[in-house]
Amino acid sequence: MALPKKDADALASIVGAEHVRVEPGELAPYARDATPLFHAEPDAVVFPATTAEVAEVLELATERGIPVTPRGAGTNLCAATVAERGGIVLVLTRLNRILEISREELLARVEPGVTTARLADAAGARGLLYAPDPGSRTASTVGGNVATCAGGLRGLKYGVTRNYVLGLTAVLPTGEVVRTGGRLWKDVAGYDLTRLLTGSEGTLAVITEVTVALLPAPAGSGTGVAYFDSLADACRAVTAVISAGLVPATLEFLDQKCVAAVEEFAALGLRTDAGALLLFGDDGTDDVVAGNLARMAEVCTSAGALEVTLAEDVARSEALLAARRCSLPALSRLNSLTILEDATVPRPKLAEMVDRIDAIAARHELMIATFGHAGDGNLHPTCVLDPDDAGAVDRAHKAFAEIFAAAVELGGTITGEHGVGAAKLPYLADRIGPEQVALLRRIKSAFDPARILNPGKLGS
Amino acid sequence: MALPKKDADALASIVGAEHVRVEPGELAPYARDATPLFHAEPDAVVFPATTAEVAEVLELATERGIPVTPRGAGTNLCAATVAERGGIVLVLTRLNRILEISREELLARVEPGVTTARLADAAGARGLLYAPDPGSRTASTVGGNVATCAGGLRGLKYGVTRNYVLGLTAVLPTGEVVRTGGRLWKDVAGYDLTRLLTGSEGTLAVITEVTVALLPAPAGSGTGVAYFDSLADACRAVTAVISAGLVPATLEFLDQKCVAAVEEFAALGLRTDAGALLLFGDDGTDDVVAGNLARMAEVCTSAGALEVTLAEDVARSEALLAARRCSLPALSRLNSLTILEDATVPRPKLAEMVDRIDAIAARHELMIATFGHAGDGNLHPTCVLDPDDAGAVDRAHKAFAEIFAAAVELGGTITGEHGVGAAKLPYLADRIGPEQVALLRRIKSAFDPARILNPGKLGS
Repeated sequence: MALPKKDADALASIVGAEHVRVEPGELAPYARDATPLFHAEPDAVVFPATTAEVAEVLELATERGIPVTPRGAGTNLCAATVAERGGIVLVLTRLNRILEISREELLARVEPGVTTARLADAAGARGLLYAPDPGSRTASTVGGNVATCAGGLRGLKYGVTRNYVLGLTAVLPTGEVVRTGGRLWKDVAGYDLTRLLTGSEGTLAVITEVTVALLPAPAGSGTGVAYFDSLADACRAVTAVISAGLVPATLEFLDQKCVAAVEEFAALGLRTDAGALLLFGDDGTDDVVAGNLARMAEVCTSAGALEVTLAEDVARSEALLAARRCSLPALSRLNSLTILEDATVPRPKLAEMVDRIDAIAARHELMIATFGHAGDGNLHPTCVLDPDDAGAVDRAHKAFAEIFAAAVELGGTITGEHGVGAAKLPYLADRIGPEQVALLRRIKSAFDPARILNPGKLGS
Repeated sequence: MALPKKDADALASIVGAEHVRVEPGELAPYARDATPLFHAEPDAVVFPATTAEVAEVLELATERGIPVTPRGAGTNLCAATVAERGGIVLVLTRLNRILEISREELLARVEPGVTTARLADAAGARGLLYAPDPGSRTASTVGGNVATCAGGLRGLKYGVTRNYVLGLTAVLPTGEVVRTGGRLWKDVAGYDLTRLLTGSEGTLAVITEVTVALLPAPAGSGTGVAYFDSLADACRAVTAVISAGLVPATLEFLDQKCVAAVEEFAALGLRTDAGALLLFGDDGTDDVVAGNLARMAEVCTSAGALEVTLAEDVARSEALLAARRCSLPALSRLNSLTILEDATVPRPKLAEMVDRIDAIAARHELMIATFGHAGDGNLHPTCVLDPDDAGAVDRAHKAFAEIFAAAVELGGTITGEHGVGAAKLPYLADRIGPEQVALLRRIKSAFDPARILNPGKLGS
C-alpha cells in the first residue's frame, strides 16, 4: 500500500524531497536487513539529518497512524529492521558525526549513524578503547548497537554495549525529545531509561545521540589456540579457565565444521583434524598478558587439549582472531542460505548444549556448524542450506525452535546478543513468560500510545 | 489512620500473626530510615518470608488500595523507605538466605535481605569479589542496594550495582511474579527489566531474589595518599590521573574540614594543615598495583601535591581507607543533625563544583564539609547543624536546592548513588525535564495500575 501523497509531501517538507524515497525501485534495498527469509517493502524510506527532523517525522507518523521502523546499517540478524507493517523506514545514517571524544572524561558523544569501527578507530587514535566489538563492526552503527545491545568478542571481560552507554538523546513516538543519563557513570535520578532504551530494538523511541564510556586502551594483547578432541572437551576447558580465576578478553570456540570451512576459506594453517578449536586471549601490560596466557595454556593442557600454541607475535594473533571473525563468511560459502542463531546457556551447560545442537541437526538432516563466545555461553549455531529446498528450510525452522527450547531448558536464553526482532518474537513468551510479555506491552504503550514504532517486534 | 481490622487479619493470615505489627509502639522504628527530617508512621509493618507471601500481600494491597513501602535495612539517605502515605511497610529482612555461590559461573544468587557485607564475605571465602561496596555495606541489604542502584568506593574501576545484577525475581504490585534476566551476562530477550528495576526504588515491583555477577578476587591492593593546598588542586589531580590512562580502584577525596574531623575522631595520623586529601589505590597483581600506584603518585606530584605517601603495608592501607569510610560518622559528631547529599558532576567540573558548594555554604552561614568519590565526580557535601535551630535547617534546605541546581548547570545530576526517594523528588524535573517525569509516571502505571507501591516517590 503506497503512502498517501499528502503524507509523502509532508515528509518531504520535513527532511527535503531528496531525502524521501517512495518509488518501488528505491524501496527494495530497505525491504531486508541481514536476516535471511524476512522481507517486507516499506511505503517510504526517510533520511532525517537532525533530532528535530526525527521528532517532526514521528509526530506526523503518530498523528496519521503510519508505522515507523528505525534503521541504522541494517546489519541485524533478527529482522528487527524489516518493516513488517509497511510504512516508513527511518534511516539514521545521515546523523553520522562524532561530536566529541574526551580523554579526560573517558567518553565519546556521537550521532547514531556513526559506524562502530569509526568510533573505535577515533577512540584508538586518542589512546582509548571503545570496548564493544560486534562482528559487524565495520558496517554496523552505534545507534543500531545501542538499539540491539550488541555484544561481541570481548563480552566476558568487558561486557556488552549496555555497560558503556552513559546517556542518550531519544525522540518519543509522540515527538517529545528526552535526554537520559548524561556524562556520568553514576546517576540515579529517575528510572534507568538509558538501559531500558538500550536493547529496545527501536520499539520505544528513536535514538539520535549517544554518549558512551571509553577506557584507556590496553598496552598490549596476546592470543593462543588450543585444539581438543571434541567441542565438549573444549567447553569443559572453558569452565576450567573461569574456575581458575581468569577472565580472559577472548575465549571463543569453533567446532570442527567451522574450522574446516575457515581453513578452506582463509588458509590460516589451522589444524582441521581436531574436534574443536578454542581461541583464548587477554590484554593489558605485557607481564599480565604473558602470565595470563601461560596460565590459560596450562589449564587447557590439564583439561586434555591435543595441542596448545601461543601466537608468537601480533600478526599471528591477528590471524587467529581472523579465524573466529571469518567463521560466518566461511560457512556462508558452503551453500546459498545461512541462518545464524545465538542461543545462550550458562557456561557449565555449554558442552551439553552443543551435544543437543548436534543431535537436533542430525535428526533434521541439516548441516549446523557451531562457533561462538564460549566465555559468555553465547553459541552461534549456523545452518547452511539450499534456500530452494523447501523441505530443508522447513526442517531448519523446526530445528531452531528445538534449539531455542533446549537453551531455555538449560537455564539459557533464545538470544544472547542478536535481539528478538520479528524473527524470535514467536519464542519470547517461552523464555520470559506470558506475564512479562504482557508487561512489555504495557511499557511499550507508555512510550508509544499509537503503537507506530516498529510494530510486529518487541512489545507487540 | 489505622489499618481496618479485616485488612490486618488478612495480612496475618498470609504471613502469620507474629509477622504483622500494628501497635503504635511497634511502628515507630519503621517511621524513619537513615534520612534526617523525614518521618511518617505506617499503619502496619509486615515481614513476609517467601516470594509467594509477598505476592499475596501485594495482591491484597492492590485490591484494597493500601500503600506498600518495601524496605530492607532502611539505610538509604533519600527517604525512599519512609511510608509517606501510610499503609504497609513491607520489610524483606526475613528473606535472608544466600542460595548459591558459583565459582565456575562467577555468580551468586541471594534473597534480598542478605546484607551486602555478608554477600561480599561469602564471595570472598570462595576467592571471589562482589564489587559494589556502598558505605553502609555492613547493614545495607542486597535488595536495597539493587532498589537504589547503590554505588560505593570502587565505582570508577568496577561500576555500580547495576553492572552486577544478572537476574531478578520480582513481584508486581498486582501479584504476578516475574523473573528477569537470569544467570547470563548476555541476554537480550525482551526489554531490560533487570536494569529498569535496578534503581527503581521500590516503586515498580518488590524484589525477592537477586542473581549477581562476581569477579575473581584481585590478588592484592595498595593505597596512597596525597595532600594538596586546596580541594580545587586535588580535583585537578584527579583529572590528570584519568587523563594519564589510569582507572584506579580508589580515587577519593576529603576536604580540610573532613580531614580535621576524621583526625579528631580516629587519630589516624593525617595531616590536618592541608587544604585537601586525595586517597588513591588500585588492586590486581603486585606488579600492576605497584606500577599504577607509582604512576598515580607521580601524577599527583606533578599536579602540585604538597606530599605524597604510599601505604607501606596492608594495615596502613586499611587505615587510609578507614579515613574515607569514617568521614560521615566523624562529621556527625560535630552537631546533632547531619545532612549528607550526593550531587555529581563531570570530573573536569569537580573543582568548580566544590568552589560553588563552599560559596553557597558561606552565603547561608552553614558548615558544609565535602568528601566523595572523586573518580566518579560524585560529591558528598555534608551539612552539620543543630536541628533545633529552625533558621539553620531552613537555610540548609535552601543551600542544597542551590547545590543541586549548580550540579545540573555543570552537566551533572542531583543524585549520583543515593537515589531520589521523597527527599529529592522536588528536584527531579529540574534534572530530567517534565517530559521525562511524565514518561516515568506512565512507566509506573504499566507496573502498578493502582499506584500502591511506594507512593510519593519515583513515578508519582
